[in-house]
Amino acid sequence: MANSKYEYVRFFEQPDSLLPNTWIVVRIDGRGFTKLCAQYGFEKPNDKRAIDLMNAAAKAVMADLPDIVLAYGVSDEYSFVFHKTCQLFERRASKLVSTVVSTFTAFYLHLWPTFFTGGLVDDVRLVVPLLPTFDGRAVCYPSVQNLRDYLSWRQVDCHINNLYNTTFWALVQKGGMDSVEATELLKGTFSADKNEILFSRFQINYNNEPEMYKKGSVVFRDYELVNPAGSNAAQTAEAADNVAEPPTVSKSKAESDKKRRAKARITVEHIDIIKDEFWDRRPWLLTGQPGTLPKQL
Amino acid sequence: MANSKYEYVRFFEQPDSLLPNTWIVVRIDGRGFTKLCAQYGFEKPNDKRAIDLMNAAAKAVMADLPDIVLAYGVSDEYSFVFHKTCQLFERRASKLVSTVVSTFTAFYLHLWPTFFTGGLVDDVRLVVPLLPTFDGRAVCYPSVQNLRDYLSWRQVDCHINNLYNTTFWALVQKGGMDSVEATELLKGTFSADKNEILFSRFQINYNNEPEMYKKGSVVFRDYELVNPAGSNAAQTAEAADNVAEPPTVSKSKAESDKKRRAKARITVEHIDIIKDEFWDRRPWLLTGQPGTLPKQL
Amino acid sequence: MANSKYEYVRFFEQPDSLLPNTWIVVRIDGRGFTKLCAQYGFEKPNDKRAIDLMNAAAKAVMADLPDIVLAYGVSDEYSFVFHKTCQLFERRASKLVSTVVSTFTAFYLHLWPTFFTGGLVDDVRLVVPLLPTFDGRAVCYPSVQNLRDYLSWRQVDCHINNLYNTTFWALVQKGGMDSVEATELLKGTFSADKNEILFSRFQINYNNEPEMYKKGSVVFRDYELVNPAGSNAAQTAEAADNVAEPPTVSKSKAESDKKRRAKARITVEHIDIIKDEFWDRRPWLLTGQPGTLPKQL
Amino acid sequence: MANSKYEYVRFFEQPDSLLPNTWIVVRIDGRGFTKLCAQYGFEKPNDKRAIDLMNAAAKAVMADLPDIVLAYGVSDEYSFVFHKTCQLFERRASKLVSTVVSTFTAFYLHLWPTFFTGGLVDDVRLVVPLLPTFDGRAVCYPSVQNLRDYLSWRQVDCHINNLYNTTFWALVQKGGMDSVEATELLKGTFSADKNEILFSRFQINYNNEPEMYKKGSVVFRDYELVNPAGSNAAQTAEAADNVAEPPTVSKSKAESDKKRRAKARITVEHIDIIKDEFWDRRPWLLTGQPGTLPKQL
Repeated sequence: MANSKYEYVRFFEQPDSLLPNTWIVVRIDGRGFTKLCAQYGFEKPNDKRAIDLMNAAAKAVMADLPDIVLAYGVSDEYSFVFHKTCQLFERRASKLVSTVVSTFTAFYLHLWPTFFTGGLVDDVRLVVPLLPTFDGRAVCYPSVQNLRDYLSWRQVDCHINNLYNTTFWALVQKGGMDSVEATELLKGTFSADKNEILFSRFQINYNNEPEMYKKGSVVFRDYELVNPAGSNAAQTAEAADNVAEPPTVSKSKAESDKKRRAKARITVEHIDIIKDEFWDRRPWLLTGQPGTLPKQL
Repeated sequence: MANSKYEYVRFFEQPDSLLPNTWIVVRIDGRGFTKLCAQYGFEKPNDKRAIDLMNAAAKAVMADLPDIVLAYGVSDEYSFVFHKTCQLFERRASKLVSTVVSTFTAFYLHLWPTFFTGGLVDDVRLVVPLLPTFDGRAVCYPSVQNLRDYLSWRQVDCHINNLYNTTFWALVQKGGMDSVEATELLKGTFSADKNEILFSRFQINYNNEPEMYKKGSVVFRDYELVNPAGSNAAQTAEAADNVAEPPTVSKSKAESDKKRRAKARITVEHIDIIKDEFWDRRPWLLTGQPGTLPKQL
Repeated sequence: MANSKYEYVRFFEQPDSLLPNTWIVVRIDGRGFTKLCAQYGFEKPNDKRAIDLMNAAAKAVMADLPDIVLAYGVSDEYSFVFHKTCQLFERRASKLVSTVVSTFTAFYLHLWPTFFTGGLVDDVRLVVPLLPTFDGRAVCYPSVQNLRDYLSWRQVDCHINNLYNTTFWALVQKGGMDSVEATELLKGTFSADKNEILFSRFQINYNNEPEMYKKGSVVFRDYELVNPAGSNAAQTAEAADNVAEPPTVSKSKAESDKKRRAKARITVEHIDIIKDEFWDRRPWLLTGQPGTLPKQL
Repeated sequence: MANSKYEYVRFFEQPDSLLPNTWIVVRIDGRGFTKLCAQYGFEKPNDKRAIDLMNAAAKAVMADLPDIVLAYGVSDEYSFVFHKTCQLFERRASKLVSTVVSTFTAFYLHLWPTFFTGGLVDDVRLVVPLLPTFDGRAVCYPSVQNLRDYLSWRQVDCHINNLYNTTFWALVQKGGMDSVEATELLKGTFSADKNEILFSRFQINYNNEPEMYKKGSVVFRDYELVNPAGSNAAQTAEAADNVAEPPTVSKSKAESDKKRRAKARITVEHIDIIKDEFWDRRPWLLTGQPGTLPKQL
C-alpha cells in the first residue's frame, strides 16, 4: 500500500540547521521551579541535593553527547556548549535542543531517588502530576570572545543572584522578617550593602560561603592541566577562531580521539571561568582536541 | 554589581515564533529505540506495555498543555497538535518542542514502573546509561486539509509498518526463519501478499489483529459526540479555516472554557482518523471550542 | 583547476523557502521618498505622474512574473500577491523579494521619461546620485481571510492617509498655513472633522476626490466578470482554502492556462477590494485558475 | 477612522535579523543574462562596456551604503561585504538584500547609456520588456578566514570560467568551430590543456589577457597603503576576529570617521585578493576603521 497521496506533507518541514563555524549553546531552564521547589521542600537559599542532581544529570548528558565540550549550571538552568566544528544532527536546532532537554530530563528523573531519598532528611518522592521538566533553546556565538562573554554573563548572574538570595533568606530565616519586609529592605542595595548586612547582622562572611553556590558548576572532560607558562588564553582563542571548517582527520585519529574522550573523566568544579586562567590551563576546551589523559587513569 | 558588560550576548538569541494561524504539530521520536527495545526486552512485533506507557505519557502531556487538541501515537513516535489559534509561549518553536519533549520524557520515566513492573512477566527496571529519551521538531500546517493529511500520513504509515512487522515476526517467531530470510521473502511484496502469507502459513487473519496496533492511538478530550446528521467535517473544516486570528473572548467565557477543558476526560482510542466520520462527530477538535461534557461526569 | 579548497563556504548559505500552501505577499516601499519627492518636485498631496509610473512598473512586474495574481499600490508602496500554490524559485524568500524589487526598479527607471518628460509641465530628468530605489520583504498569509484582511489593511491605510494629506495640503496650499500650524490643527481630529474642514474652508467634497487617490491602485489580469448570482466570495474563499497542495495538471492544460494568462490584459483599477463584491466577480484571483478571456480580445 | 480591525495582520511579518558579529555578504546575480547578452549584443567572451557598467553600479552602491567595506564582481554577479559590526537596518536580511539589489539595478539602468551609447560601436538602447534585472541573497560568515575563503572561491571561479570562456570563444571565433564542437573539445581538459590550445592554435598567451577579465573587479575605499613590514594579514584577521560587538565610539569620532569614509575615493582594481598581500596592506578592510587619506586628496 503506497503512502504517496499524503507524502506531500513532508514539504512543510522546514530546515533549521544552525550557521556553521559558530559555537552552539543549548541552555535549558526548569519549568515552574518555584512551585516545584515548594512542593518538594527544596531548602533555601540553596538545596545541595537539587544542585548535585542537576550536576549529575549534566554529566550524563555530556557523556551521552561527546560533542559537548563544556557545561555550566546555576540554580535550575544549565548551558551546554557544542564546539563550533560540531556536525551532530547536521546542526539542526530542534534536534539538538530536544535531545539535550530529553536526556537531561530522563537522568534528572532517574537519579532523583539517589539524591532525594536515603539521606539524613526524610525521603522525598516524586508525585504526579508535578514532575520536574525543562525547556530549552539553542543560540549561536560566532567567536571565542562571544562564547566566553556568554559564560561570564551566566557566572556573574550566578553571583548576583546568590548574594541576593543568601541575604534575603538570612533576613527571613534568621532575622525574623517576612518576605515583603526582606524584599523592601534589599531594594536598591549594592553588593557592598548586602555583604555588610550579612556580616553585621548574621556574622556571615559571604566569601566563606560554599564555592558551589557562589560560582555555579562547571562540567568538562578532565585532562592534564597545561603549564600556564606555555599557553595563554588569547593564543588558544586565536587558534580556535582561525579554525574555518571542521578539520579533516584520518579515521585512525578520529578513533583515537574518540577513545581519549571516552576515557576522560567528566568532572564538576566550582571555579572562576571569567578570568583567563581557566582557559589558559585547559586549551582542549577551545581547540576541541582531546588533551593528555592524567597518568593515574 | 552590574552585569551590563556581558549583557550584549542576549542579542545573539534569535526569535523563532511560528507563523500565526497555522496548526502546529510537535512530533517526538524515540532516540535509538532499536537498542533500547533490545536491552529492555520489548516484545515483537508490538509490546503492549510499551505502547500503554507511550499513551499514558501522551495523556499527561495533554493534561499539562491544554492548548493541545489532539495527539496521535504509533510505535515510538507521538504527534501533538496545537490549535491554530494557540498563543502558548508566543508560539516559539524551541519552547514548544522542548516543553513537549521534556514533559513526555518525565512522565515516560516516572510511569515506567507502572507498566513494566508488577505484571505477569518479570519486572523490568531502567538501568543507566541507556534511558529512554526522545527528540522532537515542530511543523506548521496552514489548512485543516493539510493537518488531516498529515495525520492520515501517520496512520497509513502505522498500517503499512504494522502489517509488515506482523508478517515479519510471524515468519521469524512461528516460521523458523532468521531475519535475513524473512526480509528477503518480504522484499517487493504488496499488502495482499502479506495478508496471504499470514493467513495461509499461520492462520492469522490480519483484520482480527488488535485495533491498537493496526490503527495506532488517538488521544483527545472526550465530549459528547455530535449527531452526524447535524454536522459534517467539510463544514467544520471550513469554519476552522475561516478563523483568521485568535478570537477575543470575555474573561468569563475564557474561564468557563478552561474549566470545561479541565473537566473533560482525556481518552485514548484506536480508531480511524482518515475518514470524515471521526471529525464529523467531534467538531471541537477543529473549532478549538470545548464541546458538551457527557452527563455522567 | 579545482575550486574544492574553498567550496566549503557554500554551506553557509541557509535555506529560506517560505511555508508551502500560504499566500505570499511581497511588499516594496520607496527608500527615502520624502527627499526624492522634494528633489524631483512631486506635486502634493498626490502626483499623478508618479502614481501612473508606479502602476506601469507594477504591471510590468506582473507581466514578467505570471505567478502574481494581484497587486495593490498606494503612494510609494506596492504589494504583490503570489498564489498560495506558487512554486516559483522554490518559494525562496530572498529570491522572490529581490526579483520583484529589481524588476520594479528597472521598469520604474526605464519608464520614468514616459511619465516625467514631454508633458505639459517641464521635463524632469533623473540625476545621480539620488535615484529612486525600493526595499522589500515577503510575508506569508495562511488563509484567504488573512490575505483579504492584509489587503483591506492597506486600502484602509490609503484612505486614512489620503484624507489626512488632502486636508493637510489644502490648509497649506490654499489656507496659507505653514506645516507646523497644519499639523497642529489636525492633531486628534477624526475623519468627520477633516471632511468638515475640507468642505467648510475649501468647498472640497472629499467624496468627489479622484478614486485613484482614495482607493489606491489594484492590478490584476482581466477576465470576464462572473455573474454575482452564480458566485460568492465565501464559496471561492472556501474553495481556495481547501486547496491543500499545488494541483497536478496535465501538460496540455498547463500550456493552455499559460497562454490564457499571457493573453489576458493586465488592468489597473481604483476600486474597493474590502467588500465581497470585488472577489465575488473575479473568482480567478483566489482559485488561481485563469478565467474566461473577454470576447473582444 | 481606526485601522485596528485589520492591524493584526502585522503579526504575520516574521523577523529576519542576521546573526550579530558575522560578516554579511550580499551577492547579486543577473537574471537571465544569457538571453540579455544575446539581445543587446554583448561581446564574447567579455564585453568591456558591460563590465565597466557593473563596476560603476557597484561603486554607486558602495557610496550609497558606507557599511559596505568591499565588493567583488565577476561576469554578471557582484558580492558586497558588510563589516561584521554593521548594524544597518538592524541587520534584517530582506532589507539589506532588497536595498542592495534595487540600488544596483537603478544605477545599472541609469548608467547604461554612459557605457552603451556614444562609443565607437553603434549605440545600444534598452528596449522593453527585456530589461537588466538582478536577484540576490545574504549569507553570514563568522570568521575572517571564512570571509576570505568566500572571496577566494569567487576569484578562483572567475579564473576557471575566464580561461574556459577565452578558449571556447577562440575556438569558435578564430578556429571556425561551432559551439557543440568547441564544448566537445574542451570536455575534461585541465588548465594546462586550455593554455596550450590558446597558445599553439591561436598564439594567445593567457597570462597576457587583461587583468580585469582574469582577476575580476575589487571595489573598496582607497586609503594610504600600509607598509607591509609593519602589518600582516594574520594579525589584522586576529584583531578583527577579536572584536566581539560593535564598538562604542564617541559622537565626535563617529562624525570624523564618517567624513573620512565619505572623502575616500572608491576605487576599482583587478588584483589578487587570495594572497595575504592585499589584506596586509589594507588593514582598514577588516578593522572597519577608516585608514589614512592619501595626501593628494
